[in-house]
Formats: sequence, structure tokens, C-alpha cells
Amino acid sequence: MEIIGGVARFQGDVFPGQRDLFQGLARNGQSPKTLMISCADSRVVPELITQSAPGELFVCRNAGNIVPPFAMKNGGVSSAVEYAVVALGVSDIIICGHSDCGAMKAFFTPEALDTMPNVKAWLAHAEPAHEVVRTCYGHLDQNEQVQAMVLENVAIQLVHLQNHPSVAAGLAAGKLNLHGWFFDIETGTIKALDANGEFRDADDVDNIPVAVPARQRSTSRITKAA
Amino acid sequence: MEIIGGVARFQGDVFPGQRDLFQGLARNGQSPKTLMISCADSRVVPELITQSAPGELFVCRNAGNIVPPFAMKNGGVSSAVEYAVVALGVSDIIICGHSDCGAMKAFFTPEALDTMPNVKAWLAHAEPAHEVVRTCYGHLDQNEQVQAMVLENVAIQLVHLQNHPSVAAGLAAGKLNLHGWFFDIETGTIKALDANGEFRDADDVDNIPVAVPARQRSTSRITKAA
Amino acid sequence: MEIIGGVARFQGDVFPGQRDLFQGLARNGQSPKTLMISCADSRVVPELITQSAPGELFVCRNAGNIVPPFAMKNGGVSSAVEYAVVALGVSDIIICGHSDCGAMKAFFTPEALDTMPNVKAWLAHAEPAHEVVRTCYGHLDQNEQVQAMVLENVAIQLVHLQNHPSVAAGLAAGKLNLHGWFFDIETGTIKALDANGEFRDADDVDNIPVAVPARQRSTSRITKAA
Amino acid sequence: MEIIGGVARFQGDVFPGQRDLFQGLARNGQSPKTLMISCADSRVVPELITQSAPGELFVCRNAGNIVPPFAMKNGGVSSAVEYAVVALGVSDIIICGHSDCGAMKAFFTPEALDTMPNVKAWLAHAEPAHEVVRTCYGHLDQNEQVQAMVLENVAIQLVHLQNHPSVAAGLAAGKLNLHGWFFDIETGTIKALDANGEFRDADDVDNIPVAVPARQRSTSRITKAA
Amino acid sequence: MEIIGGVARFQGDVFPGQRDLFQGLARNGQSPKTLMISCADSRVVPELITQSAPGELFVCRNAGNIVPPFAMKNGGVSSAVEYAVVALGVSDIIICGHSDCGAMKAFFTPEALDTMPNVKAWLAHAEPAHEVVRTCYGHLDQNEQVQAMVLENVAIQLVHLQNHPSVAAGLAAGKLNLHGWFFDIETGTIKALDANGEFRDADDVDNIPVAVPARQRSTSRITKAA
Amino acid sequence: MEIIGGVARFQGDVFPGQRDLFQGLARNGQSPKTLMISCADSRVVPELITQSAPGELFVCRNAGNIVPPFAMKNGGVSSAVEYAVVALGVSDIIICGHSDCGAMKAFFTPEALDTMPNVKAWLAHAEPAHEVVRTCYGHLDQNEQVQAMVLENVAIQLVHLQNHPSVAAGLAAGKLNLHGWFFDIETGTIKALDANGEFRDADDVDNIPVAVPARQRSTSRITKAA
Ligand SMILES: [Zn+2]
Ligand SMILES: [Zn+2]
Ligand SMILES: [Zn+2]
Ligand SMILES: [Zn+2]
Ligand SMILES: [Zn+2]
Ligand SMILES: [Zn+2]
Repeated sequence: MEIIGGVARFQGDVFPGQRDLFQGLARNGQSPKTLMISCADSRVVPELITQSAPGELFVCRNAGNIVPPFAMKNGGVSSAVEYAVVALGVSDIIICGHSDCGAMKAFFTPEALDTMPNVKAWLAHAEPAHEVVRTCYGHLDQNEQVQAMVLENVAIQLVHLQNHPSVAAGLAAGKLNLHGWFFDIETGTIKALDANGEFRDADDVDNIPVAVPARQRSTSRITKAA
Repeated sequence: MEIIGGVARFQGDVFPGQRDLFQGLARNGQSPKTLMISCADSRVVPELITQSAPGELFVCRNAGNIVPPFAMKNGGVSSAVEYAVVALGVSDIIICGHSDCGAMKAFFTPEALDTMPNVKAWLAHAEPAHEVVRTCYGHLDQNEQVQAMVLENVAIQLVHLQNHPSVAAGLAAGKLNLHGWFFDIETGTIKALDANGEFRDADDVDNIPVAVPARQRSTSRITKAA
Repeated sequence: MEIIGGVARFQGDVFPGQRDLFQGLARNGQSPKTLMISCADSRVVPELITQSAPGELFVCRNAGNIVPPFAMKNGGVSSAVEYAVVALGVSDIIICGHSDCGAMKAFFTPEALDTMPNVKAWLAHAEPAHEVVRTCYGHLDQNEQVQAMVLENVAIQLVHLQNHPSVAAGLAAGKLNLHGWFFDIETGTIKALDANGEFRDADDVDNIPVAVPARQRSTSRITKAA
Repeated sequence: MEIIGGVARFQGDVFPGQRDLFQGLARNGQSPKTLMISCADSRVVPELITQSAPGELFVCRNAGNIVPPFAMKNGGVSSAVEYAVVALGVSDIIICGHSDCGAMKAFFTPEALDTMPNVKAWLAHAEPAHEVVRTCYGHLDQNEQVQAMVLENVAIQLVHLQNHPSVAAGLAAGKLNLHGWFFDIETGTIKALDANGEFRDADDVDNIPVAVPARQRSTSRITKAA
Repeated sequence: MEIIGGVARFQGDVFPGQRDLFQGLARNGQSPKTLMISCADSRVVPELITQSAPGELFVCRNAGNIVPPFAMKNGGVSSAVEYAVVALGVSDIIICGHSDCGAMKAFFTPEALDTMPNVKAWLAHAEPAHEVVRTCYGHLDQNEQVQAMVLENVAIQLVHLQNHPSVAAGLAAGKLNLHGWFFDIETGTIKALDANGEFRDADDVDNIPVAVPARQRSTSRITKAA
Repeated sequence: MEIIGGVARFQGDVFPGQRDLFQGLARNGQSPKTLMISCADSRVVPELITQSAPGELFVCRNAGNIVPPFAMKNGGVSSAVEYAVVALGVSDIIICGHSDCGAMKAFFTPEALDTMPNVKAWLAHAEPAHEVVRTCYGHLDQNEQVQAMVLENVAIQLVHLQNHPSVAAGLAAGKLNLHGWFFDIETGTIKALDANGEFRDADDVDNIPVAVPARQRSTSRITKAA
């Protein structure tokens, strides 16, 4: 396994220069501010594209950067979200899709899923995005439809996120923001979903579009309604 | 969100030097040889500790580096395993636990899970490891019990892996090896489980312990039994 | 059973005057334009408060006017939503909560649920609303908290609705609107959630607040993002 | 949405005449004696065909008037049954099927369900009725088979009801009766299942057939058996 | 393991005398007429108490002789029932409870189940029987209540059986009878549930009580109802 | 039902000679040392082939001698395993497959499962074995492939067993052994899986192959790894 050489290089060449960082992290525990949910794809490395050091990014990765709804109570993604918000108190959650995503392309070659029943079942959580593509983008060519699928999938996973109790409460308390990103492998650029449903450039440090911004509840919501 | 500065740095400073790599990966798709299943913990960066470049490591991360059994047919981990083996044809799967793991420590403060029902449900997949710790390591102090929990958890997730059809078939065809690793944050070292159930140093490039080596079936297994 | 007298009255006194309507509905089938999801509470009669005739309102009623997420694939509510949108082509879905709701009040006397395991499990679908109430409205008195629970529950069920593929596609195609209503038993008034998250009077015939209005996708969403 | 006009009519014209009733119901809560489980079909209005006033009928409606078994612990129907029996103490539960039921007709055009996966999954709870129709009524024409499906479905849902603990206990305590009804849209008539498995007219106020009458356990059942 | 001596005795002493029987069964396959569902308890040996030879009794055994409802689609009992009725065409299904059943006694010492989560979950399928016992037999002493639990459990599992499509169809086609038995370990006697809900002696060869006798549907059921 | 004659014979002819045994078992309860998980097939009688008396063998039988993984928390097999290990303290668990198994043969005629959805779902737990057969034994004839399926199925169910907490703990505590057997109907012989994955004769009383022998954990496993 070639990877073993890399482990030796890490231990011999890289770790010595980061020893203080790792020892501090071992002593003090982690306190990341951001949860990133991205694809398992080997070309999308969260810490690389955000230039995050060890300790800065809590990361959940799965095929298709999917977030099942809260009600399916034994999932790895749901528990990562819950742990990040409740135990670690992160202030931001990013769902990051990407170009050329094998999981999203699978919707256009469903027969390939016959030998992958788990993948097929898992992708059902992206079915609402697929239905939107079928309904609204049927006139596009297949590459564009894949692209549409990736983007609509980011949007629907943001809907799923909002039904997790910890996320709903974080948003309502004004302490949590939700982000929907698209990473383009070929150009290295990131686009971010804004509150109007458009994907826009995210390279301005001070003005990144936010898909679902925190919005603190006011009591008047209740008293006026009653 | 501080992370945005990192995105800008990636696009401005880092990507230009890797443009050829990324464009090749965009054009040719990914062909990683290894699936790494590790914890969502921000201190355990798979590509860093294996010094892997983009395109080399298919990565699934969740709280506690857990692999639910195949029968729970809609999981993110199961589908990542299936995709890696069936669609990508990886030759190695690594389950990588780590020191000071919050998920494993949660077994020793179960009341903390009252506000995290999803995490609680998710950790049930590590319950066999916990039962082993309760039964066999009750005389150790709590730090040692956490350590035992991390190691036994790696072992039980390797059991889970073997009940996935694609993994069972890969092992029986002699094409897939399963690894159980332990990463120590403080020292940067990795230990690997061997076939006798012991965790040993993994720093020898040519002789890494393998937890469940591929073993090709021979027809004699059947004919002699009949 | 007293109700039998009512059946006789219906057949003897009421049906003769509606015979033509019923025979037309038997001959031509139903074609309602609206799905109403409301509580099983005996005091909230959908056809009464909307003055709908037989044939006009497709109705799903359960304790707490709840909509589980799509992924729980065998539910009565999910199938009613799907049937209404796909088979009947309704243009509007109303989720209607109400004052003094026993299901919502159960969140404040959880011990009462010990003898009702199914109710307890069912109400988990309103847990995000409860978490919002706990986090943001803890300073209110219990009556106000119940009221908050009813309103926040309507909001979270609208989130659930949006992850049903047929609903997501209907919204994106510009053909479906989602409504969140609150019915006050004592005053007979209805408030409707607007797109800004406020409940407002719904008595203006031409200008009813809509919680999630249809919004047709344009191709530019995709092409500009790419 | 046309329905808004109806809301205004209710508030302006109807509610004033029922203000006392509604204010009493708001003050005293609900105390219905009957739970009615009927189809979501817009032509079958429970309060109309039983001439029930607000506060008299606890109502659960779903596509096909289905009652999943107790073991599927997160269902809307199961929780409505449990709430009605345990919290409200109803004395009668009616399962009401009807002619021309779209859900029951779907069994005869299964390809129509390809675009409605939730409906398909939901209708599995009526599969025993379908199997009876396939086995015993194959010689009838399709209209008769649909009719058979509706009736057998009422019967099987009564079987499901009896496996809910609260219902089983209510029957054994002599406090609960179960009814199986068939409503004919064209004629406005209701037939009720009797204990011999026949559907008979229900228009006699004093002598309505009961499908599963309460039957109090006597101790002798146990002592004689032992 | 002592049992190995038994295997040797079987091969050396017993099999030679049954060689023809076994070779016939190997050649012709099995064609049992009866499915027996009984407890895993080591004291209740189905073939012994019915004096059945190899090939005569299809047997499903689990803790508490339980039959989950059909809807829980991946169960070992449900599949045994289905295989017995559809593939083997058995004419009789017996659910056999027994005295001193550890599974039924567990309902009276629920804390013992804290270390057995699977048993606890499994026994939920007997909860309706327990609810009947709590409601109707609270005045009996604990031994009698256990006895009541065993008997009521047989009754409720017969309800579950009837919601399996193959069983419902077999009953309606007049080809299948359902039996509820109680085996008393101390006396070796069997009582059988009759159609009136009483357990009676089963020792009369010609007149065994049948709990749910086959009853063939007649077309008149449908045509008269319509 | 012919079987009734057998019951009478048991009570009249057989029980009197075993009265003392049964009365002792009624008085003292059961204390079997072995759990046997075998097929429901009428030709495989566990007590016969092991020559076990009442009280000696705790028995779980289902179609295909299958053990679902622990995580599927409501299964009859899982609860039998748990009850046997935790409540009864058995020292050995045997999974016993057999020749000519209808459940295993069903993998080669999948269309036969169209009318048996529960069997189909249940057999998914043997899918890893089937995948091994497809991958490694495709060159064998069908009889040999069925034989391979039976043997590989025993092996995979042993994997499943090891993920049950009580089993994992029993193995690690050195108190539990797991056996994988194959019973040949025609010859009456039993082969047992050894730790190297080969099925060997089991007729030597002192030297039966054990598939997964107990192996007590030593503290050094943890301390050396840390
Ligand atoms: Zn991807
Ligand atoms: Zn960790
Ligand atoms: Zn309500
Ligand atoms: Zn209907
Ligand atoms: Zn028992
Ligand atoms: Zn078999």
C-alpha cells in the first residue's frame, strides 16, 4: 500500500514542525468553529480548499454531501451535525458540493446502481433535487443537468439541515449560519448560495453569501399571533 | 467566518501551483486506491497524516469512525464503502481511530448524550466495543478505559465491514485488505492492528500490519466439505 | 353509539338535498384544488372553517398536524401529500395548527406520554419546534409557550413538506404554494404565516399571506453558477 | 386560492351563530366519544355523514383509511388511535371505507404508483386485503374487485387495530367497540360489518352491526386453562 | 462441549436406523403439512410433544413464540410463515406457548431487560397481551398473571398472523387453519384455544379446538354489500 | 390435522416415562449450555442430531439459519442470542446450515421470491455470502454453488454473531465459543468450520473444530498500544 510511505513521511518530515500545534490540541481538545459536510470524493479536500489547520474544521464526508432528515435517528451525518452544534458549539455549517460528482451523476445512469443497493438507498435523500431537475431542467444537455443536480442537491440538503432540532434552535437563537457551497475542481473556485437562491462568487473575504442566515426570534412573533 | 480568508488564500496562493493536478483530475476523474474511514474530529486530517495529494484518498468521516452493518440499508458510511469497492475498485480500506476521541469518551459520560439523541443512537454501533471494555477492562483507570474503547471500537468496526457484500467478496477474491489504525494526536504516531489482534507500530514502509488480509477462496473449501 | 342517529339524519334529511352533488362526484371522481393537513382534534373541522363542499378539500388529519420527512417511506401523511400533488395536482397545501392543541401541550407534560409510546414517537417530528421554544421562549409563561409551540410547529412542518420530491418540484415549477395557518378555537379566526416568518390575519380574500410561494426556476441559476 | 373566500364566510356568517359552542370547547377542551378513521378523499366528510358538531368526532384521515400495526412505532394513525383511547377515552372506533376509492383502485393499476413511492409503501398495509381479492375474487369483473378490495381492506384494518395495546385492553375490559363501515358516495348509504363478516345496513338507530364488540375477560379464562 | 458426544451417538447409533427416511427426504425434499411456532426454551421440543418424524414439522422458534406483524418486512418469523404457506403450502399453523416462559416472565421484572435491549425490543410485540393483563388481571397473584400473560400472548400472536397476506388469503380460501396452544411443562398436557377465546384440552384426536378456522369467502359478501 | 394423534401419543405413551425429567425442569427452570441456531427445515431436528434431552438445547430456528446484525434492534434471532448469552449464560453457540436448503437455493431462482417479499427481505442478510459465491465460485455447477452458498452463509452469520455486544464480550472474556456446522441430510454427517476457514469432520468427541474460539483479552493489548 503506497500510502504507508506517506505515513512515514508525515512522521519523519511533517509532524516535527507541527509538534507544538498537535500537543496543544491533545492537551486542550478541539474547538473548531465550522462544520463542513462534503463529498467523500478524493479530489475535494476540505482542509486544503479552506486552508484550515488541524483543529479548525470539523468534517463529515460521505458520497454526495448528503444530510438525511433528523427523523432517521441513527445516521452518521445527523450525529455529526448534532455533535458539532450541541457539544462543540460551531457557528457555521457548510454543505459543499462539487463539479463532476459521481454520486450526482449516478442519477443519470440508474442501472449502475443495481450493484450498489446501499448507494441507491442513500441517494434517495437527494431525490427531491432530482425531481426538480426532471421537472425544470429537462431541456438542458446532460452536463448541465448534472451541474443542476449538484446545485439543487446542495439546496435540498440545506432544507434537511433545518429540521434538525439543534440547527433549528441555533438559527432561531441567532447563533448559527448555514452555507451552501459549490467547488469547481477544474478552476478551484467556490460559489456560495445566497438567500435568494442564487449561487455567487465567494472570494470576497468580507461579503460571503449566506444561504440561511441566523435570525433571532422575537417574542412579538408569538404575542402578535395570539 | 474566518474560514473565508482561507478560501481566498487557496484560490490566490495555492491553487495556481496545483492547477495541472486539478485539471487532470477534472478531466480524468478520480481513481483513488484507498478508502479511509476516520473521525470527524478536526485534529485528525486524513490527507495530512498520510501525506496524500488530491485524488489519492477516498474519505468518509463521521463521529467515531463507525461502520454500521450492511443491513441498515440507507447509511452514508455503507454507501461510501460500497461506492469505493464497487465503483472505484479500491484495494485497501483503513478504519482510523484516534486518541482523546470525544465520541468514545461519551460512553463514560452517558448523561451528556441526553441532549444528543442522534449521537446516542449512532454510538450504539460501538456498543459491542463498550461491552468488551465493561467486561474485560473494568480494573483499568478511566483514561486507559477510553483508550481501550478506541481500540476495541476499531476492531468491532472491522467486523462490521466484513458483512458488507462488496467487502466480503473483495476479501474472498484476494483483492482487498482491511486495516485498523490508531492515530495518537500528541505524538503523531500510528499503530496498526495485526491479524492476531495486537496494535503495532506502522512506521516500517515495507511491513505494515494488516488486520484482515485478503484471502482467496479455493474450490477445495467446498468440495472437501461436501 | 349516539353517532348512529346522525347517520340516519344524514341519510334521511341531508343527503336528499345534496344528491346531485354526490352523484356527480361519484360519476366524475374528485378534483380538489387544496390539500389541508390538520389536527385530529374534534374541534377543528376543516370543511367547516373553510366552508368547503364535498369534493373541494383533500384532507389529512393526525395528532398535531405533523408531516414527517419524505425519507420515512411508509407514512400516511407522506402518501397523502404525494397523492394530492402527483395524482390530483392540487395547487395549495395548508398546514393548519390550532389553539389548545393537546399534542403540542404534551411537550410540557412529557410524563403523560409514558403510557402513549406511539404518540411520543410521533411527536418527535415536532421536536425541532420544541427545541426552538426551549431556546428562545423560555421566559414566557406556559400558555404562551404552548402557543409558541403550535406556531413553531407549523413552521417546521412546512420545512418537512419542502423535502418531499413532489412538493420540491411543484414549488420549483411555479405550480404549488405552501400555507401555514393557525386556527383559534375561541375566536374562530385564522392567521397565516407570511414569507417573513410572521403570522398575520388571513381574512382578506385577495391578499392571504403565503408561507412558501411557488418560485419558478430559471436556467440562469445553473448556467451562471457554472 | 378560492378557499379563502370560504374562510371569510365562516368568520363572517357561520362562526357568530356557533360562538357559544366554540367558546365552551375552548374553555373545557374536547371530549369526543368516537374516533373515526377515514379516507383523505374530498368526497367523504366524516362530520357531514355522521352529522357531528365540532367537538364530537376525533378524526384521523389518510389515503385508504389505513391503520398500520402497532409495531411501526412512529405513525400518525397509530398515535391518533393511542391518543383517542388512552387520553380521550373514546368508546368507539370506526374505520370507514368508501366507494370509488383511489387508493384501493391503485392496486389494479400498479404502474401508476411508480411515481408515488410513498403511496406505494403506504398501501403495503392493505396488501393482505389485496391477496384475499387475488385469491378469492379473481372471477369478478374489475369494478366488483375494487369493491371487494374496499371491503376486505376495512376488515384487515380492523385486524391491525386489535394489535394496538390500548385497543386490545379496551376490548378486553369491555369498554371499546370496533366498527367497520362502507360509505357509498352515490347513494349516501352506509353499511356496517357484523361479527360474522357480512356488511349490512346501518340505518337502524338501535341496532347497528358491530364488527368487533367489546368482550370483557373473565378470570376463568386463565384458571381453567392452567 | 458435551453436545459433541451426542452428535457421535446420533451418527453411530441413531442415523443407521433412519437412513432410508433421511435419504428419501434428501432425494424428494421436504413436504411438511404444519408450521409450528414455539419458544426457544430448551424444555419445549416441538417434534417430541407432537411425536413428529423428520420431514413432518416446519419449525420456527424464538424467545416467546412471537409473530411480528407483516409490515416489519425483514423478520425471521414473517419469512418462515411466508415460506411455509406460499412455498410449502402447509395447512395448519400452530403458535405454541408454554408454562414458566422466561420471555413472558420478563414483563414482570422489566429491570432485568436493561442489559438485554434486543429482548426488550422484541417483547414489544407482546405488549398488547401485557396491556390486557394489566387492565383485566391485576387482581390475580403473580403466578396467575404470568399464566395469563402466556395465554393472552398466544391470542395476540394469532392476531398478528392474520395480517400476513399469505395467511389472510389462506384463511379466506378455506385452506389454512390457525391454532393457539399452551404446553404445560409439568404435566405434559396441551390446551388449545377455541373460536370463543377459551383454552380447552386438546387430547381428543378427532376434535381439537381451532382458534381461527379457515372460512371460505363467498361472492355474496361483496355483491350484497354493494 | 394428523399431528393431533402425535400429541395424544406423547401424552399417553412418552410423557409418563419422562415425567421426572419434566417435573424437575418445571421446578428448577432451564439451564442449557448451548444455543443452536438452525434452519426451520423439517428435516433438520436439532435435538435429534445432537441427541439432546429436553432442557439441554436452547433453539432458535428460522429460514436459512440467519443471524441479523445487532443494530436491527427488534429481531427474534438477536433476542434469542442475547437471552441465551446474558440470561442463560450459554458457553457455546452453534450456527447449523444443511444440505438442500430451500432458503439458500432461492438465491439461484430469485423470481420465486416475487411472491414472498418477507423471505426476500430476510435473505438479504445472506447477501454477503451470495456475493462471495458469485465472485469466487462462478465456475462451479449449480449444485456445487448451492453447497458453497450454504457454507459461506454459515461463515457470514458467524461474522454477524460477533457484532452482538453480549457475544463480543463473551468471546473477549474467554467464556464463549462460536461454532459453524454443516449437516448433510443424506449421510447424517456434520462438518464443523475451523479457525482457518475449512469445514472438517466433527465426529471426534475430543477434538471438534471451533470456528471462533474464546480468546481472553489481556491488558497488554491496551497498554502496549498506547
Ligand atoms: Zn461527489
Ligand atoms: Zn473522534
Ligand atoms: Zn391539536
Ligand atoms: Zn379513498
Ligand atoms: Zn418461553
Ligand atoms: Zn434450510
